[in-house]
Amino acid sequence: MSINVTVWGENVHEQTNDVVARIYPKGMHQCIAEGLNEAEGINASAVTLQDPEQGLSEATLESTDVLLWWGHAAHGDVLEETVDRVQKRVLQGMGLIVLHSGHYSKIFKRLMGTTCSLKWREAGERERLWVVNPGHPIVQGLGDYIELPHTEMYGEPFAVPNPDEVIFISAFEGGEVFRSGLTYKRGNGKIFYFRPGHETYPIYYDAQVKTVLKNAVTWARPEGSLWVDSCPNVPADQAPNPVEIKGESLHKPGEEGFK
Amino acid sequence: MSINVTVWGENVHEQTNDVVARIYPKGMHQCIAEGLNEAEGINASAVTLQDPEQGLSEATLESTDVLLWWGHAAHGDVLEETVDRVQKRVLQGMGLIVLHSGHYSKIFKRLMGTTCSLKWREAGERERLWVVNPGHPIVQGLGDYIELPHTEMYGEPFAVPNPDEVIFISAFEGGEVFRSGLTYKRGNGKIFYFRPGHETYPIYYDAQVKTVLKNAVTWARPEGSLWVDSCPNVPADQAPNPVEIKGESLHKPGEEGFK
Amino acid sequence: MSINVTVWGENVHEQTNDVVARIYPKGMHQCIAEGLNEAEGINASAVTLQDPEQGLSEATLESTDVLLWWGHAAHGDVLEETVDRVQKRVLQGMGLIVLHSGHYSKIFKRLMGTTCSLKWREAGERERLWVVNPGHPIVQGLGDYIELPHTEMYGEPFAVPNPDEVIFISAFEGGEVFRSGLTYKRGNGKIFYFRPGHETYPIYYDAQVKTVLKNAVTWARPEGSLWVDSCPNVPADQAPNPVEIKGESLHKPGEEGFK
Amino acid sequence: MSINVTVWGENVHEQTNDVVARIYPKGMHQCIAEGLNEAEGINASAVTLQDPEQGLSEATLESTDVLLWWGHAAHGDVLEETVDRVQKRVLQGMGLIVLHSGHYSKIFKRLMGTTCSLKWREAGERERLWVVNPGHPIVQGLGDYIELPHTEMYGEPFAVPNPDEVIFISAFEGGEVFRSGLTYKRGNGKIFYFRPGHETYPIYYDAQVKTVLKNAVTWARPEGSLWVDSCPNVPADQAPNPVEIKGESLHKPGEEGFK
Repeated sequence: MSINVTVWGENVHEQTNDVVARIYPKGMHQCIAEGLNEAEGINASAVTLQDPEQGLSEATLESTDVLLWWGHAAHGDVLEETVDRVQKRVLQGMGLIVLHSGHYSKIFKRLMGTTCSLKWREAGERERLWVVNPGHPIVQGLGDYIELPHTEMYGEPFAVPNPDEVIFISAFEGGEVFRSGLTYKRGNGKIFYFRPGHETYPIYYDAQVKTVLKNAVTWARPEGSLWVDSCPNVPADQAPNPVEIKGESLHKPGEEGFK
Repeated sequence: MSINVTVWGENVHEQTNDVVARIYPKGMHQCIAEGLNEAEGINASAVTLQDPEQGLSEATLESTDVLLWWGHAAHGDVLEETVDRVQKRVLQGMGLIVLHSGHYSKIFKRLMGTTCSLKWREAGERERLWVVNPGHPIVQGLGDYIELPHTEMYGEPFAVPNPDEVIFISAFEGGEVFRSGLTYKRGNGKIFYFRPGHETYPIYYDAQVKTVLKNAVTWARPEGSLWVDSCPNVPADQAPNPVEIKGESLHKPGEEGFK
Repeated sequence: MSINVTVWGENVHEQTNDVVARIYPKGMHQCIAEGLNEAEGINASAVTLQDPEQGLSEATLESTDVLLWWGHAAHGDVLEETVDRVQKRVLQGMGLIVLHSGHYSKIFKRLMGTTCSLKWREAGERERLWVVNPGHPIVQGLGDYIELPHTEMYGEPFAVPNPDEVIFISAFEGGEVFRSGLTYKRGNGKIFYFRPGHETYPIYYDAQVKTVLKNAVTWARPEGSLWVDSCPNVPADQAPNPVEIKGESLHKPGEEGFK
Repeated sequence: MSINVTVWGENVHEQTNDVVARIYPKGMHQCIAEGLNEAEGINASAVTLQDPEQGLSEATLESTDVLLWWGHAAHGDVLEETVDRVQKRVLQGMGLIVLHSGHYSKIFKRLMGTTCSLKWREAGERERLWVVNPGHPIVQGLGDYIELPHTEMYGEPFAVPNPDEVIFISAFEGGEVFRSGLTYKRGNGKIFYFRPGHETYPIYYDAQVKTVLKNAVTWARPEGSLWVDSCPNVPADQAPNPVEIKGESLHKPGEEGFK
């Protein structure tokens, strides 16, 4: 059964910046989706911030196994209710792959609970992404490292919680280092942050970057069931050991809890 | 040097519910602060939601080493800007102890990135909090478990990220279990979630509960420095290996990044 | 493609204890393997301590995707070289499921780095294993909890490193609690510790226990590649940035490192 | 109260290699201890592999708050019983700081459960250790990075379990990267792995390296109590809820469990 992937792009610089429009004439989101569709078993389509419901309706999210997120200039335009819908689906089990400047997206900051800040420099310098664990599913098909000739630099400290796994560490021409591939689990959703992707360089045409994204989609697909949490009251007579009610209560029988 | 502690209480049921008013005539926050002040080296004071700036001005937070949070009915009244201020201080290094129904507070959900939901029952049943690691600083002075004769039940699943450490696991008279003492680190701030504390039972007068809170305050005090993160640009000529700028750029020299 | 599973049993009490021989006439390992073989896509066979090379030759391990381990009385008879072989395969990516008294096996202690001790009582009491995350692949097909009418009690503190995930927490009739389903990753191997399985009760005939083991086998199967680590020297002229050798050296060119 | 520190050195190359003997005439262990003793509140002394009981008797370990470990050529000469004693103390709560080639020491591999392998090159190249979290107690007094002009290279993949925190990431002149400062907790013991320290370069005279070691000693000192775990039987009549014994048993009343 194929994996349904949605690539979300903010689609701003493609419209406003000549360099970006030239490199990604169909938009970065479309380029990323096309790269994924080269893989058998992946069925990717692209949506953008300008689409109805910001491209992420309940229906779209329900049918999405893995969501990729590329945003940069328009993080502030993403509505809280859009972020609410995405977060809910991630906690249920939808995979999420956050790309490059998405470190500052509302959804990534919401799921991390931290500022997600870092150092940066835009000088078109060389980046090498070293593989920290050659056996990991996300790095299959790569060698010791990926080399990108021209990238924006991101440097530590990267203000995120300690990840479950560090997949890549980058070394930049200018000397800085960065944890450029990180995994997390939040609820039942697998999350992968992947650093490359600055819009003024043709990063998403790179064969090795495409390999990583295909691998990551497969890794992040839902396992188990799409559990929807709630906050159920368990009546005293339905406890595994039925309990006699003692003492004083705040809530009347059957009343909902505070939220 | 003493540890400066602020106990935040929403102070709602103390004003509106006769049972709570009788048990905690000065308010739960005041009772908790008085318990902490029994310890040498702790200097605790209480603030409430009704105070100016919801009790948590910049100045108050700057002078707070560890913040305790008790809320239940009024989570929704806490302003986003109050949550912003508290989150910033936690990431800098202020300790945070979240009590009982604070699992659903905005600040806890913000720092966790998950829903923080659970099962519950208000039947005045017995709870035993088993010590998972007898050597941990938070449980010094306790035996194998704490027994509370009358508590509200919280049951798994508790929808939080995997903690750094599980300190207590509770078994309830009705049969349910719950991870009732959990530690996290977010930024430089140490976070301790501690389950007991339903407002219709005199939990915060219990000697063992007071011991846990005193221990937890000492454990959660800031270490290191209060680092304020930012998102600095590192100019190409100030890199450890100075870089010549290549290719095309989105940002003009000296321009700030997007947020 | 089916998952190749090897069930290792020490096969001691089956031979020496009438109760165990009556409950498990073909041995516990055989019963566990037969339970797994009920699932499509799992191909399980049993080996024992008494087999050549203690049942775990290089060839057997090479063709094993997931290994289950049941031992109790004969932990001390497992040779260090057997443990070496198993550890190496786990680090490469073979899944490992450690059952019940296997908490004290050499292989589990080796992989954990801790004593793995706990409290215990053999009184045939009731155990309920509560599901901590209903969406996890290991618990699919279960309800809120598994109830076992007669089990040995294991109680906290369980002296293991903090797990990646807590899957089950048990509550015992006598009042104790225990983290009875834990996951770890070591190297590329997924590890699942599962508590039930005392040999004087027919635990491995229980339908829900069998469901957990089938789910766990699927969860623990290798992903990615079976990476064999080593400690390679990278000569100065083969570095990504070739380096001129400076200063003094301990090793002559081409010499192996110390181990 | 001062922190009692023991610096363990294998003291082999100091005796057999002219370069090492010239740089560290009193031995590396002595140099490290003298650096630590510059700090108020630290009371460090050095022991070696050649001392009675390999320098690590029960009495020495009992009075040690934090142990530093430097070994390289003689890992194989450390007796299993020495490793047993050190592991037991770490699990009780003694801090452990493992230096450089100690990644391959028996005690580090025992506590990690993995091979702890890495890439290496001895070319006297430049290393920069970037600070991943400027607020962490271990990096106080440092700038953005430590620069060492001549070091041995260690490169990823570093085959260790995912750490609790990454404190430093190194970038080497030759292009490789390495997680060069990692923290773990095992039992109650805090563990810090710190990469620098090759014996043919005067690393332990470096002011910033000394700062890190002083900070790390303070960070790793025991908190809480020195809990000694065991595997206690809890008789049925002493359970919190006394249990009537049902079914059949393996152990006779009062009998010890298998180990």
